[in-house]
Amino acid sequence: MNPKIKWLREKMRGLDMQGMIVSNPINIRYLTGINAEGVLLITRKENHYITDSRYIEDVHSTVTIDDEIIISNFTDISPYDYENFFSFCENVGFEENYITYAQYKNYMQRYKVNNFEETENMIEKQRMVKDEEEIAKIQKACELTDACFEHLQKFIKIGMTEKEIAYEIESYFLRNGADGLAFETIVASGKNSSKPHAITTEKTIEKGDPITIDFGCKYQGYCSDMTRTIFAGYVPDRMKPIYDLVLKDQLQTLEDMKEGAIIRNLSRNVENDFKLYGHNLIHSLGHGVGLDIHEIPYISGKNDNVLKENMVVTDEPGIYLPGEFGIRIEDTVLITKTGCINLTKSDKNYIIVDN
Amino acid sequence: MNPKIKWLREKMRGLDMQGMIVSNPINIRYLTGINAEGVLLITRKENHYITDSRYIEDVHSTVTIDDEIIISNFTDISPYDYENFFSFCENVGFEENYITYAQYKNYMQRYKVNNFEETENMIEKQRMVKDEEEIAKIQKACELTDACFEHLQKFIKIGMTEKEIAYEIESYFLRNGADGLAFETIVASGKNSSKPHAITTEKTIEKGDPITIDFGCKYQGYCSDMTRTIFAGYVPDRMKPIYDLVLKDQLQTLEDMKEGAIIRNLSRNVENDFKLYGHNLIHSLGHGVGLDIHEIPYISGKNDNVLKENMVVTDEPGIYLPGEFGIRIEDTVLITKTGCINLTKSDKNYIIVDN
Repeated sequence: MNPKIKWLREKMRGLDMQGMIVSNPINIRYLTGINAEGVLLITRKENHYITDSRYIEDVHSTVTIDDEIIISNFTDISPYDYENFFSFCENVGFEENYITYAQYKNYMQRYKVNNFEETENMIEKQRMVKDEEEIAKIQKACELTDACFEHLQKFIKIGMTEKEIAYEIESYFLRNGADGLAFETIVASGKNSSKPHAITTEKTIEKGDPITIDFGCKYQGYCSDMTRTIFAGYVPDRMKPIYDLVLKDQLQTLEDMKEGAIIRNLSRNVENDFKLYGHNLIHSLGHGVGLDIHEIPYISGKNDNVLKENMVVTDEPGIYLPGEFGIRIEDTVLITKTGCINLTKSDKNYIIVDN
Repeated sequence: MNPKIKWLREKMRGLDMQGMIVSNPINIRYLTGINAEGVLLITRKENHYITDSRYIEDVHSTVTIDDEIIISNFTDISPYDYENFFSFCENVGFEENYITYAQYKNYMQRYKVNNFEETENMIEKQRMVKDEEEIAKIQKACELTDACFEHLQKFIKIGMTEKEIAYEIESYFLRNGADGLAFETIVASGKNSSKPHAITTEKTIEKGDPITIDFGCKYQGYCSDMTRTIFAGYVPDRMKPIYDLVLKDQLQTLEDMKEGAIIRNLSRNVENDFKLYGHNLIHSLGHGVGLDIHEIPYISGKNDNVLKENMVVTDEPGIYLPGEFGIRIEDTVLITKTGCINLTKSDKNYIIVDN
């Protein structure tokens, strides 16, 4: 059987769970490789994936005999079949953080299960620590991101719009073998950079603008995430101290990230250092990266957990001066026993384009 | 008080509901104009909107005193406040089709409500019939879509990629006053057009390609949706009968759409006509359009309801020959007492670009 489903079955056994309904398509992709819309039923004796005619051909071509997954079109499943999937199952898990209350009620009626049990992000927690194959895919996504950034430094000219730059990023990724974007690219120049979650606009790049570019691609489903704030023509003097402070704390966090590091402290160190200079860290210092662009663990001052080997997380401090400008610097990072490996390797010194 | 909240309160009174938690941001935008992340609480005596620091400034500038909505930052709301919002409320409605099971449980704990009641898409149902102001916004979005299509007929050249055309569409909308795209543009050429939900790729347009362009914009939150299948250089003879059949049924549906028309029959008429020629209608014939790009009512063979005056729906039959090509033609349509008004007015005869 597929080793990830095997893991899930062992986990379920430990929780006295005889069945589980997996509905989150990212979790299904993690377990099976299937990239579609449907539901995965882990029953006492079988693994069933139920989808519809749009996906069935593609799903059949993804799954191998070794996976031991029975694939069906939902139109071929009768109410009687649904009632029987979990016969002799006392406790059946479901994903309470993914399905709506209405779907939950629908599951109750459809599957006639004795006891539905919450699974508390069981699969998401397992996804935090990546295996070799997953790391290789994230690494490839990060390499494409570095290469794209190299290309951008020649491409970006004063007078271009933010949107033009964002289009070029998407186009570069597609031309170079990525599945597509990991998330909607942010290109925020001048005053727009002062918003942490800026929207890319038709504003043109002007001389002296900082340009925050937050971007990443997917490679075989796995994401990369990198931010650089670069400058058009020259680096205005008033921006240098802010840039230097953000970079200092970004580098210090890289120093501190390793197996066993207490996540809360990583964030608090940056928060405290920013405060010394009269600034605040107004968003999380980072987040997990994998099949989802934002995964657990969140690197925040409220997270009491520790980093583990083979987690992949971002390190992205930022300072935002409303109505003026903002600076954010972000890498995607692989945690190791003794430190971390920065997977996005682009330069973080002052970068000036079109000078 | 805001007339839409007034409507909601009357509706709630009829259902013996003394309070309601509105969580779906589109429903909140419909009721209040607020475009943010947060929750709207309709309590016995007050209307509360609770959001976070990212949105609070913007929300204050959206809401007027006449709306009678109390705006708070969630950091200022204590557990005690939460428990008291619905004191003396016997039944409190919630959106079972929007919130997850885990959120439902969280609401249960937080609000200490006696009886949570499902609201069965109460607000979504009201949203089906548009008022004058809403219709004017959809009309404007449709006008921009027609103008964009006019522009595209000159813009598209053989050798361009599908992505380049999609970028031009987004850029056109932004240059001309739209909020942005109503949904991710589909530009599917040649064989790619044979997939009903094609992804826009880096494929270049070749002579003789059909190009299915499914696109729309948002204007002040309201969507447009139009599809045309056009041809690069010339119309291949083998595609003409399929095009003619799709167009015939698209026009016949426009004839049939009016207040009182049974939705099921609209779809079945097309299904049956397609079958006469050996084809199938493999997706819904249409859907409602408003603040969401896909809203109820769905124009499908399973919908027993009737069309009503001032509903806005699409009419979009399509035929797809796997591995060969596909044709889809779609308009956004306003239902009237005696017929319908086609809001997207672009030409539907054979359109040849770069000839």
